[in-house]
Amino acid sequence: MTTSPSISAGRVTSGEPVGAGTAAGAVASLGRSARVASRVVATASSGVRDGAIERWADALERHADRILDANQTDVDRAVGAGMGATGLDRLRLDGARIVAMVTGLRRVASMPSPVGEVVDGWVRPNGLRVERVRVPLGVIGVIYENRPNVTSDAAGLSLKAGNATMLRGSGSAIATNSAIVALLRDGLVSAGLPADAVVLLEDTSHRAAVEFMQLQGIVDCLIPRGGHELVESVRAHATVPYVIDGDGNCHLYVDVTADLDQAEEIAANAKMQRPGVCNSIETLLVHADVADAFLPRVARRLVGVTLVGDEATRRRLPDAEPATEEDYATEFLGMRLAVAVVDGLDAAVDHIYRYGSGHSEAIVTRDVAAADAFTSRVDAAAVVVNASTRFVDGEELGLGAEIGISTQKLHARGPMGLRELTCIRYVVHGNGQVRT
Amino acid sequence: MTTSPSISAGRVTSGEPVGAGTAAGAVASLGRSARVASRVVATASSGVRDGAIERWADALERHADRILDANQTDVDRAVGAGMGATGLDRLRLDGARIVAMVTGLRRVASMPSPVGEVVDGWVRPNGLRVERVRVPLGVIGVIYENRPNVTSDAAGLSLKAGNATMLRGSGSAIATNSAIVALLRDGLVSAGLPADAVVLLEDTSHRAAVEFMQLQGIVDCLIPRGGHELVESVRAHATVPYVIDGDGNCHLYVDVTADLDQAEEIAANAKMQRPGVCNSIETLLVHADVADAFLPRVARRLVGVTLVGDEATRRRLPDAEPATEEDYATEFLGMRLAVAVVDGLDAAVDHIYRYGSGHSEAIVTRDVAAADAFTSRVDAAAVVVNASTRFVDGEELGLGAEIGISTQKLHARGPMGLRELTCIRYVVHGNGQVRT
Repeated sequence: MTTSPSISAGRVTSGEPVGAGTAAGAVASLGRSARVASRVVATASSGVRDGAIERWADALERHADRILDANQTDVDRAVGAGMGATGLDRLRLDGARIVAMVTGLRRVASMPSPVGEVVDGWVRPNGLRVERVRVPLGVIGVIYENRPNVTSDAAGLSLKAGNATMLRGSGSAIATNSAIVALLRDGLVSAGLPADAVVLLEDTSHRAAVEFMQLQGIVDCLIPRGGHELVESVRAHATVPYVIDGDGNCHLYVDVTADLDQAEEIAANAKMQRPGVCNSIETLLVHADVADAFLPRVARRLVGVTLVGDEATRRRLPDAEPATEEDYATEFLGMRLAVAVVDGLDAAVDHIYRYGSGHSEAIVTRDVAAADAFTSRVDAAAVVVNASTRFVDGEELGLGAEIGISTQKLHARGPMGLRELTCIRYVVHGNGQVRT
Repeated sequence: MTTSPSISAGRVTSGEPVGAGTAAGAVASLGRSARVASRVVATASSGVRDGAIERWADALERHADRILDANQTDVDRAVGAGMGATGLDRLRLDGARIVAMVTGLRRVASMPSPVGEVVDGWVRPNGLRVERVRVPLGVIGVIYENRPNVTSDAAGLSLKAGNATMLRGSGSAIATNSAIVALLRDGLVSAGLPADAVVLLEDTSHRAAVEFMQLQGIVDCLIPRGGHELVESVRAHATVPYVIDGDGNCHLYVDVTADLDQAEEIAANAKMQRPGVCNSIETLLVHADVADAFLPRVARRLVGVTLVGDEATRRRLPDAEPATEEDYATEFLGMRLAVAVVDGLDAAVDHIYRYGSGHSEAIVTRDVAAADAFTSRVDAAAVVVNASTRFVDGEELGLGAEIGISTQKLHARGPMGLRELTCIRYVVHGNGQVRT
């Protein structure tokens, strides 16, 4: 198999696709090198790709000191620049985090490859055999903040799905990311794959990031991993296709027939088990007929959570602050919960329609009809009956691994696993059929 | 089931989603009315939706005169404005075209609904039952040129998949489109669905079109149906998610082991059967070792086709004009064919990599290894072995109907049928599970 991008036909002198643009500069050039490598990676066997990922795990384990040294440089600089505790926690690696990165890579390597899966197939009356086959996307772009563990996590998932990866981490993590990517590139070469199957954009300027988001014909799918501002920047600037890992303004609705013990457990878990993540709840909706019984007990249970509520809530919970329109529309990502008393399931569904971000929505109910109405009428990536929204996660739902949770509807919705890093190709076999 | 968008909870006074924007003006207002209707359509039974589509077919049949009268107004105006023959042909309706519209609607109504399909599902070790369920996208936006038959075709497919539809046809067809949409809206109401499940943007200005392409939070998926300029306008302006029905710069590669009789049939069919459409071929690639035998005979067969070729082609076909780089990059959509002689499959694959638009690519070969290499290495929506590229079409491949052929990789690739007008929702059932 020839892997050279140059071609021998007639007048063609350059191997690059005419659609890949002619933009000069380091960002486009880096992207084009990843694009060239993507052709090799896409048609390598899954055994070769898995071998590379295993080499990555070995290298990260063997050279953990290199990574930790580089990380210390980043951390020192960040401390000097006055980075806050949350930022530093995300930036800092330690032995345990390296082990998690290594373990993550080994698990991804051991998963079945999504590439080549025949999704479905059939035979036409004229004998044409039609198959829809899962194939790599090509070049996955990942733009992320602080956390350097995303570097190996994202590259591992992307390569497993047969793609090259173009990474753009934050300036604060540049030494760490460079050290990790150097190991990944070495591993690719020793596995017989091109080093450019993983490239890191070392220019961490905003200008370069915008250029990255606009590499049409080069980046097949851009995935932002980070906060609201990063996502908004992608929405504003990206001209390449992207999948948004958006806000999670999630709700729990406690229906009139709910098992209130169960509802209390689920509310506490969905709010407090890890309040800073997207699949935690931000608003509790309670059916008016159980508000007297449920609100005082759940308020006692939500120790440390600031409650804000509408008038009907505050009649039952005098300590709750008044909720503003803004409160209902906000993903707090912390120990604050908006509460509203609703007249019934219709009102709960309408509240979620108005304020929800389409991430994860849950109901607690014993009523089959209510569960059915909620799951069919609430338009979100995930709807959950009688369980915590915290389960809406690739790992917890059994996808094996995830690169994010999509809140958009096209291509991927909900937890994005390996399958969402691929696309479909129609493969049609005939024996001379022509159309009449 | 309450279908009102207003809610009864606490302080909420408006039923519209906070994410649907506050843009004033007729375009946004029209979009919001479709969005409200989309909630009703999405949860109506498929029987009710099918009933509406059947009423549409009946109404178009019964009131064909109204549509034809309106169309005559459009055609007269277009003639006065000096529209060319191709444009007029696309704009003009007649009895046969109305019958085709009616038949199309009846066929769509009779197809199985894609909504509610459980795509897959499994049970987690903790007992959580996970299902991925096919659900409507919400509001499908369609922007199209001239052809008024798209009005009923697109609305029918969209409603079948549980969506509301926002249409923007060209100014030249406004009277026809308005007449059709009036019938569709009447049909919705008499089927018990809201009229706003189909809305037509009657302001056909460019400004209104751009506003349409930017209705974030309202339009879930925008589908342009038209030429290169329309597609480029969507790429440039759209901020809502879209699926591009892009160019088809398609190739046929005649391998060294090809059955040359078959190759000749396929080349003629793929070029000449309907040269103006996206799945016709624009370039013929011929293995050097069969060029002497194949080129003269295929040239004789391609009566009326202007051939342009590289030097190696022109040695065999002295009448062929020299091909420019531009020729290989162009979708001619007419009786012109670029030809190149290549050293083998690698060179053919590389030529397609460089010039192809990712639509449909075909090989004629008797060699299993060549067929495998071609289908695995050519990155296009569809790869075809020993058959005409003209089969790459929703109807011909057995999807039952199509709203376009996607040349993008995310969400939909290749012919887009009903399934591509839906998305996925995770539905998770538990019995009190919380995350530890």
